Amino acid sequence: MSPEDIRANFDRQSMMATLGADLAEVAPGRVTITAPILPGSRQQQGFGHAGLTFAIGDSAAGYAALSMMEDGQDVLTTEMKINLLRPAQGDRLVAVGEVVKPGRRITVVRATVWAETDDRRVEIALLQGTMLPV
Amino acid sequence: MSPEDIRANFDRQSMMATLGADLAEVAPGRVTITAPILPGSRQQQGFGHAGLTFAIGDSAAGYAALSMMEDGQDVLTTEMKINLLRPAQGDRLVAVGEVVKPGRRITVVRATVWAETDDRRVEIALLQGTMLPV
Amino acid sequence: MSPEDIRANFDRQSMMATLGADLAEVAPGRVTITAPILPGSRQQQGFGHAGLTFAIGDSAAGYAALSMMEDGQDVLTTEMKINLLRPAQGDRLVAVGEVVKPGRRITVVRATVWAETDDRRVEIALLQGTMLPV
Amino acid sequence: MSPEDIRANFDRQSMMATLGADLAEVAPGRVTITAPILPGSRQQQGFGHAGLTFAIGDSAAGYAALSMMEDGQDVLTTEMKINLLRPAQGDRLVAVGEVVKPGRRITVVRATVWAETDDRRVEIALLQGTMLPV
Repeated sequence: MSPEDIRANFDRQSMMATLGADLAEVAPGRVTITAPILPGSRQQQGFGHAGLTFAIGDSAAGYAALSMMEDGQDVLTTEMKINLLRPAQGDRLVAVGEVVKPGRRITVVRATVWAETDDRRVEIALLQGTMLPV
Repeated sequence: MSPEDIRANFDRQSMMATLGADLAEVAPGRVTITAPILPGSRQQQGFGHAGLTFAIGDSAAGYAALSMMEDGQDVLTTEMKINLLRPAQGDRLVAVGEVVKPGRRITVVRATVWAETDDRRVEIALLQGTMLPV
Repeated sequence: MSPEDIRANFDRQSMMATLGADLAEVAPGRVTITAPILPGSRQQQGFGHAGLTFAIGDSAAGYAALSMMEDGQDVLTTEMKINLLRPAQGDRLVAVGEVVKPGRRITVVRATVWAETDDRRVEIALLQGTMLPV
Repeated sequence: MSPEDIRANFDRQSMMATLGADLAEVAPGRVTITAPILPGSRQQQGFGHAGLTFAIGDSAAGYAALSMMEDGQDVLTTEMKINLLRPAQGDRLVAVGEVVKPGRRITVVRATVWAETDDRRVEIALLQGTMLPV
């Protein structure tokens, strides 16, 4: 699927706008989404909520899967596992999703999420899951 | 921890307010969170975003873990797996988190998320993960 | 699929024989496998190896999925998450696999594994995953 | 922990002997285990059983965690997710476990399992999980 079609699909995800997320990069099998840690995206200690980290990691992985599909297709997450390594603390989060194994029936994906502060980039989460073409 | 302290902790999670989520019920080892599928919480097809389903399921599970801890403690999700069964479609989502095995070092939790429409309640997601007391 | 065909499939899994596992019960969407903790199935502390717990939990879940399929079908595990709650210690392990949501394309399953000693039954693991019909 | 102590720990895992597994390489934070697909380690279609792939992947990850710990410590798997990419088919399986984030309370790990045939090496599984020092 073309980067333009992926962007159009991304723009239909109102959750991404709510989180202030940006589709930063689209390459075949690899998609980057960035997001600030908005005042409205926090957990109880003021860090980014696990739901924020999950949402952009999952979406980056989903669009990576979509980037290897035919025009007109779409994907849904069927399952996703996230390991949270460190607090989501910093100026912004960067999620990179990658296709591990594309498939007609299911596509296995991974994503890594970093928190960036100035020049420092810290790995905060790893995701591994399955996308279902629909 | 008392239901009041759990509610105070919940109220500090700005993400819950952003998603319109409500702490509906707190019992020892079992917490219910509900949320509408707001216009700003959607994926590309207009269903609730996986990030919404994850966020309330994960939070319900986390507060279930917290409900079995001492005053003054807090918990962080260390890992969570979600299987998405059906689209998040309906009037509102209901997430019930439960403690499977409390522990001093880690607490294993599960959550189920339903989508409700009038009198119909459909299971849309199952979560299984680990909370870390901090 | 009939219990007889499931048993025939189980008998072709040489790993089950190696582990001393027994197909104890087959009902539609629910299958029980038991196994002793053989001298050759241990981890470094003498408890049952996580590989043993996983193998019978995963197989119980897989056969539960198969029990809801047509004759002539087969299933493969595409992903499985296991949370280990307690050491695999006792006279034998009992794994019960259940179908959460059957489907033409994927079937979501869960399994619980207990360790039994005389009259005591302790939950030692929870599995949640996805089976792919082939 | 020294490679010798890790080897001694490995040698106490009778399950590894049952599966014919070999501790091939130990480096700080990275451990390789290999195993043939023995006649007694098969699933119903004659491929390696998911329990075999899981057992060596999980053990490689666990020993990678142990390799970064002090003498006298031990680790237990608390949770592990496996995505199976392709059938376990070939002359032998190779599992490489790596530490993603070491920690005093939990250590996050990953493992990759390949199936080798002559000069061909195919990725068959990805694992991501958590080890608990004990």
